[in-house]
Amino acid sequence: MENTDISKYILGLGESAKRASLTIASATTAQKNAALGAIADSLRQQASYILSENSKDMRAGNENNLTNALLDRLVLNEERIAAMIAGCHQIVQLPDPVGEVTGMNYRPSGIQVGKMRVPLGVVGIIYESRPNVTIDAAALCLKAGNAVILRGGSEAIYSNLAIANCIYDGLSKAGLGVDCVQLVETTDRSAVGALIQLDDYVDVIVPRGGKSLTTRISQEASVPVIKHLDGLCHVYIDGDADIDKAISIAFNAKARRYGICGAMETLLVEENIAPKILPALCRQYADQDIELRGCEKSQRIMQSIEGASEEDWHTEYLDGILSIRVVSGLEEAIGHINHYGSHHTDSIVTQNLSHSQQFLRRVDSSSVMVNASTQFADGFEYGLGAEIGISTDKLHVRGPVGLEGLTTQKYIVVGDGHVRM
Amino acid sequence: MENTDISKYILGLGESAKRASLTIASATTAQKNAALGAIADSLRQQASYILSENSKDMRAGNENNLTNALLDRLVLNEERIAAMIAGCHQIVQLPDPVGEVTGMNYRPSGIQVGKMRVPLGVVGIIYESRPNVTIDAAALCLKAGNAVILRGGSEAIYSNLAIANCIYDGLSKAGLGVDCVQLVETTDRSAVGALIQLDDYVDVIVPRGGKSLTTRISQEASVPVIKHLDGLCHVYIDGDADIDKAISIAFNAKARRYGICGAMETLLVEENIAPKILPALCRQYADQDIELRGCEKSQRIMQSIEGASEEDWHTEYLDGILSIRVVSGLEEAIGHINHYGSHHTDSIVTQNLSHSQQFLRRVDSSSVMVNASTQFADGFEYGLGAEIGISTDKLHVRGPVGLEGLTTQKYIVVGDGHVRM
Repeated sequence: MENTDISKYILGLGESAKRASLTIASATTAQKNAALGAIADSLRQQASYILSENSKDMRAGNENNLTNALLDRLVLNEERIAAMIAGCHQIVQLPDPVGEVTGMNYRPSGIQVGKMRVPLGVVGIIYESRPNVTIDAAALCLKAGNAVILRGGSEAIYSNLAIANCIYDGLSKAGLGVDCVQLVETTDRSAVGALIQLDDYVDVIVPRGGKSLTTRISQEASVPVIKHLDGLCHVYIDGDADIDKAISIAFNAKARRYGICGAMETLLVEENIAPKILPALCRQYADQDIELRGCEKSQRIMQSIEGASEEDWHTEYLDGILSIRVVSGLEEAIGHINHYGSHHTDSIVTQNLSHSQQFLRRVDSSSVMVNASTQFADGFEYGLGAEIGISTDKLHVRGPVGLEGLTTQKYIVVGDGHVRM
Repeated sequence: MENTDISKYILGLGESAKRASLTIASATTAQKNAALGAIADSLRQQASYILSENSKDMRAGNENNLTNALLDRLVLNEERIAAMIAGCHQIVQLPDPVGEVTGMNYRPSGIQVGKMRVPLGVVGIIYESRPNVTIDAAALCLKAGNAVILRGGSEAIYSNLAIANCIYDGLSKAGLGVDCVQLVETTDRSAVGALIQLDDYVDVIVPRGGKSLTTRISQEASVPVIKHLDGLCHVYIDGDADIDKAISIAFNAKARRYGICGAMETLLVEENIAPKILPALCRQYADQDIELRGCEKSQRIMQSIEGASEEDWHTEYLDGILSIRVVSGLEEAIGHINHYGSHHTDSIVTQNLSHSQQFLRRVDSSSVMVNASTQFADGFEYGLGAEIGISTDKLHVRGPVGLEGLTTQKYIVVGDGHVRM
């Protein structure tokens, strides 16, 4: 397609989505759950078709020399399709956030004022090569009463088209308009540019993918974006920490999984407790082949630690590397985190109540923890049921974004013929 | 100043504000209230100085042939200064939103997860020629724990500098850093452009002023904007309306004040009840010299109604003009409002419970009302105590924006040595 044709195509998707959003916004919980169930059924019935379409993407991916990591995200199998189906059923079980009325109070004028939770409207999801996002994102948006436009990575186009067919099938069986979920069917990159400028039809864009995708989208979008940027997470071991808890939290926060955004990247240790912590902890890291880079004070305690540069305090490794800094106490720790961190997730280990209170209040991050591993930063662990991403933005929604983050609240006012004086 | 100097100056304000925001965010309620009290005292002591500085602005305004409406917004007198002082005392009385913890629940893993309300950080307010906004905006931002950068209209620069001095005076008397509130002291227009691009230091921009200001800022800003655009508000008189309530609400919604964003601009009337409503109601409008423009059906009922064009349904008059449309019922009314409205405030008059439920759920506006005048759309009437504007955005905050809208929530997680499996 020419660029102008692509703009027209995306505009058409936007117009259809806007119309569909007015219907899905007032669909009953039973209708939405029926659609999710029908989508799950359709995925089960068409599993072998989805797998054969996915093998086309895999063949092309191999021919185009995609990395093994990318191919691993792209590949589907029976187990992954079963997980998609389970995901739909799980979202059926979540309470419907739409229509919840809170805070209705009588005002001195006699009117009642409160808030009603309502869908955002039209959500645009832009993601990379994981085909399961197609179903996860569609299911969450549907349950929250939104119409959604999905733009997946071009490497997964055959898989995504096959999965989208199951979604259309489920929507029409449940009597909901198929335009509630629309997949962008062109792999042309200019479609993304057109989608993120569609202010009149799209209420929010959620990018799901690496930092470069998110940064590009937030810079170019005129539609508001719910951003998920870096996770440069810290654990601070306070002078009043319990030593066993400190070691097991600091080990888990780094070593459980390196590649997730809640993984610890920098460990801060109070200077008096550092000699009691670092020898045992560094032995555990060494057993996992984790490379350690630290400040001079940390190197005086453990010779196995290499020197850290200023750059290290700014780096989200997402790998088997950890930076370590010995600090004078709580003030320096909070200062370091607010300066170098990415406002994602940071944890203090301490038995000191005042220190925990100050840390909770003053650390400016989407999740602030006490005596818990940063790896808990996750929608399922927080009880959201499912998440569409983790927001490092401050406005609208901060931290894991579940159904509630895909809704907003409007004021409702009920009078009985009231006029304003 | 040269443009590069202005950029440097604004960057300097941003850096100072960011530093100050970390202090004000953890200031106690008592400290913030003491500062507000000291600011009020300072306003009282320096009232005659403020008035003499204001008279400089008024002289310049007269020389520059400002309209009477602009001069009226610009002028200060004893009464308006007393209102500013009362505003500070009133914000002292409001509960402090910062630090509120909600929803702490144990999760199956054993961690407790909840949310804590925290300040947004640095707020930039861009406004026109009303000097009272300088104090109102500063006081609200302070109480919500934010640092604020204020950019008022150039016509009010002497007044604003005098008021800002009172703010600095109050802040230092209360032992809070004066950088918590900073006034942009240059009237150069490029300062606005620099401020709205200061992503690294400013968390949100709130424009307060006309549509052209807001539109320009939202298009050019890379900092998120809480927008207040048009108020094209509707009253729909349902077929099941009580006739007396309908007439008094429809009259009040238009005639109480024309110039506020909650004023009704279009009246929708169900076709069977229209002949019982329009004659009496139009007589009341005629007594107020309100010009009526309507659809053909309305003209058949009342010959005094002039013909409305398509343009009229899109127009926020903010004046003594009203468009009137006779509709077939609830569906057509909701369709008209969602299509032509500005998603600000819309009201239904009905005794029919199902119709009220459908209207509340399906009208996509920041305030949806039943049997009440749209003129109630106001932070004071809603119990927010004070407002910084009315948001027609969907994300973050919708409707009147008070203290809570100037804060956000972060997740807090409390464990006792918990690690993730």
